[in-house]
Amino acid sequence: MPSETSPAPRRPFAAWLGETNEVTRLFLSAGAIPDLINLAGGLPEPATFPVPELAELARKAVAEHPGDALAYPPIEGLPALRDRIARRYSTEALRLTRDNVLIVSGGMQGLDLVGKALLDPGGLIAAQAPTYLGALDAWRPRSPRYRPFRPDANAFDAEAALAGAQFAYAVPNFSNPTGRLVGSGTRRALVEAAEATGTWLLEDDPYGALYYDGEPLPRLIELAAERAGEPAPEPYDGPVLYLGTLSKEVAPGLRVGWVIAAPEMIRALTLAKQGSDMCTGGLSQRVALDALEDGLDRRILPGILETYRRRRDALCAALSEHLADRFGWEVPVGGMFVWAVAKDPALDTDRLLAAALEHKVCVAPGSVFDPEGRDRRAIRLNFTLNDEARLAEGVKRLAAAVQIT
Amino acid sequence: MPSETSPAPRRPFAAWLGETNEVTRLFLSAGAIPDLINLAGGLPEPATFPVPELAELARKAVAEHPGDALAYPPIEGLPALRDRIARRYSTEALRLTRDNVLIVSGGMQGLDLVGKALLDPGGLIAAQAPTYLGALDAWRPRSPRYRPFRPDANAFDAEAALAGAQFAYAVPNFSNPTGRLVGSGTRRALVEAAEATGTWLLEDDPYGALYYDGEPLPRLIELAAERAGEPAPEPYDGPVLYLGTLSKEVAPGLRVGWVIAAPEMIRALTLAKQGSDMCTGGLSQRVALDALEDGLDRRILPGILETYRRRRDALCAALSEHLADRFGWEVPVGGMFVWAVAKDPALDTDRLLAAALEHKVCVAPGSVFDPEGRDRRAIRLNFTLNDEARLAEGVKRLAAAVQIT
Repeated sequence: MPSETSPAPRRPFAAWLGETNEVTRLFLSAGAIPDLINLAGGLPEPATFPVPELAELARKAVAEHPGDALAYPPIEGLPALRDRIARRYSTEALRLTRDNVLIVSGGMQGLDLVGKALLDPGGLIAAQAPTYLGALDAWRPRSPRYRPFRPDANAFDAEAALAGAQFAYAVPNFSNPTGRLVGSGTRRALVEAAEATGTWLLEDDPYGALYYDGEPLPRLIELAAERAGEPAPEPYDGPVLYLGTLSKEVAPGLRVGWVIAAPEMIRALTLAKQGSDMCTGGLSQRVALDALEDGLDRRILPGILETYRRRRDALCAALSEHLADRFGWEVPVGGMFVWAVAKDPALDTDRLLAAALEHKVCVAPGSVFDPEGRDRRAIRLNFTLNDEARLAEGVKRLAAAVQIT
Repeated sequence: MPSETSPAPRRPFAAWLGETNEVTRLFLSAGAIPDLINLAGGLPEPATFPVPELAELARKAVAEHPGDALAYPPIEGLPALRDRIARRYSTEALRLTRDNVLIVSGGMQGLDLVGKALLDPGGLIAAQAPTYLGALDAWRPRSPRYRPFRPDANAFDAEAALAGAQFAYAVPNFSNPTGRLVGSGTRRALVEAAEATGTWLLEDDPYGALYYDGEPLPRLIELAAERAGEPAPEPYDGPVLYLGTLSKEVAPGLRVGWVIAAPEMIRALTLAKQGSDMCTGGLSQRVALDALEDGLDRRILPGILETYRRRRDALCAALSEHLADRFGWEVPVGGMFVWAVAKDPALDTDRLLAAALEHKVCVAPGSVFDPEGRDRRAIRLNFTLNDEARLAEGVKRLAAAVQIT
């Protein structure tokens, strides 16, 4: 028994923190492995960052706009940046104003705020499956329930998928983790279902600019606006929330993203943001604004696409050479990932991760993209961070790991 | 009845969003009033921002450290910045390492993360009363219960105040809103009670550098470390979480703050941060690191103190001239606020706010610092944002508003 002066046991952490698992532990250990080839993350190639241009924009932001860069910006974001984002996404049917835009501290914060604004404990999320790991992380503290839907399944019933959920979560462009596009017809069906059921529809689009082949498909929010009829209402007032970010188009260290949604939703998200970080940093916002005004994102995009296209092809070639007998995959039309599904249902990709780390390569096992952690048939492979030689070497190591799993 | 093609009613927002009140509406309307004198907020004087120095640091951050400034920093923050913060607060007894430090996106995010890490729905917070409005905002989405404590009350029983709570919340230096210091004896009692009860103790210290008179009192985290005995354990492992920020010492637009706590708490907060915004912006972190390494914060502090001391005196002089018969207050030794309590218990300061806005002055009514919104006897007045003439004019307008309330 403790003596009177012994400290009492500390109060426990919140219940959701008890849900971390073995895979998380493995990921954390990976950082300490020398010469590891990381195919697990979703990181951009740092050589694509426009360093001299951003250095000058950063200096100018502080020197010429100290009020924007150094004081507290409004919770919703710098008005000029909100206007800029509204213009960037406006079309004839999608008529956006500043009231449709909330600046957020990276796409991840957008996910957190949507959870805060819409989820009471036990609330139901309809989630495109498999589901982006970061979204599961963002919503875990609110203890939601999940109902998965697979938009590429035969006879996909969008209305059944969405009915009764607080919101539906989709990554229509190069879904994380599968790299797959949601087709135009299914996009329309999702938007119609959102209207028919009253379920909010969250369109997460971090990879929308990363089309390596073919033409971009219409955004869900554009389809929602088109359904509102003529003349198009301004500001936009539909059921789709669109989440965008500069992380993949300019640089993630700025932590600048945006939510585009109906004004009532922006107001709710703004209250959630006020209690989350008060506002997104003014320095980053001003740099983001000037980068967009200057067209920096458009100037560097061709180089990014060229680099990533080459790397995608290199990863897929290495897979064909070393792993074609053990895994199946589709060559993605864009994005950052290849989703490889084991041909042998007995291959457990959680165990494969442990073996891969022994061979100094890291991949993301399917279980982390399943709210229940049960899918152990697939792995997600990133192709944007490593050059062609490292990708080939990484796949070779992975093939060796498969042999001992 | 809606036809088959009518959109369904949208799903409602989370329950906590229904709790906004009339005061929030009044605050929001204040932004549209021309020539308003804002005594309500907690904003620093922009003229104190070291603009040329920060412009050069921002350029250098990107040009010379693009990996830090533009890529994803680690969730916990840049290692060199964590080390710097650990050194800044270390004493003989308080032995901090990188593992004790989490970089956060402003102090507000620290509050949000503590709520995520410690609060299940309905969890109990022991809160120094009256309580910082922003903390109430941060924790509202987790629907906590509050038990207020008043550390300056006669016969304050710290153990009774803390027992059974998940955590206790205190602002020992120039409490927001009252501007009061918690005395040394009470600080010790709070730390002892945290150990005796197992209740975590959150020390929120945004104003710790803003002492205008006298010497700083010991931090709660220092007192906790001293109780651990000799030799001091490294890393620190006590029950106090310390929350600091650059917002008042350099510039709020950077959104850089830090939590210092036991390593197990830092690990829990890191998981919460991962799902909140992934990481704090690298550009801001690198600028913060270089500003601290360069001693910029120490160089500008005397000028800040001089400005704010003069403004505090001007506000109190104006109160003495115009409102001494209606309100009582103490001259604060530091911080950003004067807390003025109405002498007439019938004066409702929510109603006073409405009248004040008609007279083009904004103050923060006591109700927003009470989890139950019932305290309507006091107002919080900020003295850092406006110069002496504006402060005097603001108090004059307020006195006119008092006449019609």
